[in-house]
Amino acid sequence: MSSSAETRPLVAVVMAGGAGTRFWPLSRCCRPKQLLPFAGGRSLLAAAVERLSPLVPPERTLVVTSSLVAGAVRDELAGLPAENILAEPEGRDTAACVGWVAWRLARTAPDAVMIVVPADHVVPDAAALRAALAAAAAAAAGRGGLVTLGLRITRPETGFGYVELGDAAGAAAGHEVYSVRRFVEKPDRARAEAFMAAGNFRWNSGMFAWTVAAIEGAIREHLPALAAGLDEMMAAVGELGEGEALARHYPLLPRVSVDFGVLEKASPVWAVGVDLEWSDVGSWLGLAELLPASPAGVTMGDVVALDSERCVLVSDGPLVAALGVRDLVVVATRDAVLVVPKDQVQRVKELVASLRAAKRDDLL
Amino acid sequence: MSSSAETRPLVAVVMAGGAGTRFWPLSRCCRPKQLLPFAGGRSLLAAAVERLSPLVPPERTLVVTSSLVAGAVRDELAGLPAENILAEPEGRDTAACVGWVAWRLARTAPDAVMIVVPADHVVPDAAALRAALAAAAAAAAGRGGLVTLGLRITRPETGFGYVELGDAAGAAAGHEVYSVRRFVEKPDRARAEAFMAAGNFRWNSGMFAWTVAAIEGAIREHLPALAAGLDEMMAAVGELGEGEALARHYPLLPRVSVDFGVLEKASPVWAVGVDLEWSDVGSWLGLAELLPASPAGVTMGDVVALDSERCVLVSDGPLVAALGVRDLVVVATRDAVLVVPKDQVQRVKELVASLRAAKRDDLL
Repeated sequence: MSSSAETRPLVAVVMAGGAGTRFWPLSRCCRPKQLLPFAGGRSLLAAAVERLSPLVPPERTLVVTSSLVAGAVRDELAGLPAENILAEPEGRDTAACVGWVAWRLARTAPDAVMIVVPADHVVPDAAALRAALAAAAAAAAGRGGLVTLGLRITRPETGFGYVELGDAAGAAAGHEVYSVRRFVEKPDRARAEAFMAAGNFRWNSGMFAWTVAAIEGAIREHLPALAAGLDEMMAAVGELGEGEALARHYPLLPRVSVDFGVLEKASPVWAVGVDLEWSDVGSWLGLAELLPASPAGVTMGDVVALDSERCVLVSDGPLVAALGVRDLVVVATRDAVLVVPKDQVQRVKELVASLRAAKRDDLL
Repeated sequence: MSSSAETRPLVAVVMAGGAGTRFWPLSRCCRPKQLLPFAGGRSLLAAAVERLSPLVPPERTLVVTSSLVAGAVRDELAGLPAENILAEPEGRDTAACVGWVAWRLARTAPDAVMIVVPADHVVPDAAALRAALAAAAAAAAGRGGLVTLGLRITRPETGFGYVELGDAAGAAAGHEVYSVRRFVEKPDRARAEAFMAAGNFRWNSGMFAWTVAAIEGAIREHLPALAAGLDEMMAAVGELGEGEALARHYPLLPRVSVDFGVLEKASPVWAVGVDLEWSDVGSWLGLAELLPASPAGVTMGDVVALDSERCVLVSDGPLVAALGVRDLVVVATRDAVLVVPKDQVQRVKELVASLRAAKRDDLL
């Protein structure tokens, strides 16, 4: 065993690069999902940072986001040192994001254990999440390799990735640790049901822990082009400054997810089993599950509903007045109104694409 | 026979006092239905005045409206002398409106024939309407009594009043004139079907013609309290000026419609039969019948519709984006959005009432 988690600094990496077109018209280029007030009036991002803070203090919490919204993110996270907001010139998916942070930490905190979490999750029991992340960090520090949180499956969800567990491999900080047999991308309904029935599957949470050395080694082994790009970029930082080096090199990094590009290929990979109420707030329906229900369904903002049921009615400005409607999503902002049946919310992306094609950039 | 219409001046009276809550949120206190751009981009009111103009010139066209919107009406009807916009301090229904104009004309143009029309009708064939109104004016001038236009029934509509014709009584200006046996308020479906089948019924159009003397006499006979109030008010005009006299006396006038208070009781009453495409644009559905249809239904303003059918989608500001909806009415303004199934548009009044109860005056 290498040194324990207790002797290594924990660094939290909050990935906040998403665009969130599924929440159009509330989400926009300049106001992505993670900045929307979906966490009881606060943004999902602020909630994510605050949730981690008893485990990782602000000075060791890094937030990676798009340069388009870095200013808004700094405003939103006033408790974080401004230099802890890392701005990507453009999104290159999660492997580049994680790689950039690891390459940076290799210079400043090479012993660190990174805890990597997305910015757009909702986890009501923050203490349980922290305990699980602490266990994952302990496992990562104690065993080497890459560690993912494997969430207990509560429904045969086709929108998530899954992880198949292998042998139990002991415990870390009160949590079971398993070897990972394989990762499975979003399955169809039948496979999702089979995974749920099988018992040895978990949802791949997108929350990870690893040492800087472990993730750097895995990237060098499985994504050598990314590793080379990061090497070049970091060399340029000394010469050009970080802003200019990133502007030149970051957009050239390979675009691949850390799940697909690294975790599915690396070994060993561990999963810490955890039983948490959790949502990735993937759509208006996902949000609806989290909010208190009224007779009309779920409402947010200035809404009047008469004789309406099972709706999602959201206003960020104009009054939304619903009369006699069922199973409908209505989202109104100052300049755009979306109306779509609940069973078709996944198609909002089509709508956004059609606006883009029509060059309605003011609405994107 | 008294003097013919040719020797009497025609005066057009456009009644533009309606509130139009059925078109909320596009219609508001300060912007009632008749000011909405429902007539091919122009307001219904401007279209009504223009439709009459070859028959009655602007200097003899009077528009009676609420003092709340008189300024907007003057702006809308820049071609009319400003003093021809008559502002009611508050709406007291159509008998008071018609009576006020008759009492005024008794001083300035006692020989006039009044043509009275609502401001919120849509009549595609303006020439045919003018011919019918000219015939009604000729009948009013030639026969005395009150004259209504009786429109050919094309469907068993339960939202209109009906008039039962008695004997044919000759012709005026190429149109049949009938004595009127009785007026019938909005019937139920079975009665409406019977009226349509009977053949001797017409829709009561709300468009009338009469001499100043005939309507004044009928009001004095059948609505003596109104007549007394108008006498007092007109006496006060000389003393106080019209604005102050109206402010004191007009709100005290009895509130009754000219149909119920005068026409149903007076004799003789004539009907000029006319076969016109006509709509009173009573609701979003009525409007939809008048507008060109697209695959999504009827759209007005900034609207994007994907995979939507038979809808009424109206924007007066924000983009309305409809996805996968059917038979739905969506109306969006800067500060309010209405969503209601087509078969429940009549209930918009309930919504407006609930906003009034909630003191959301800014939205009314």
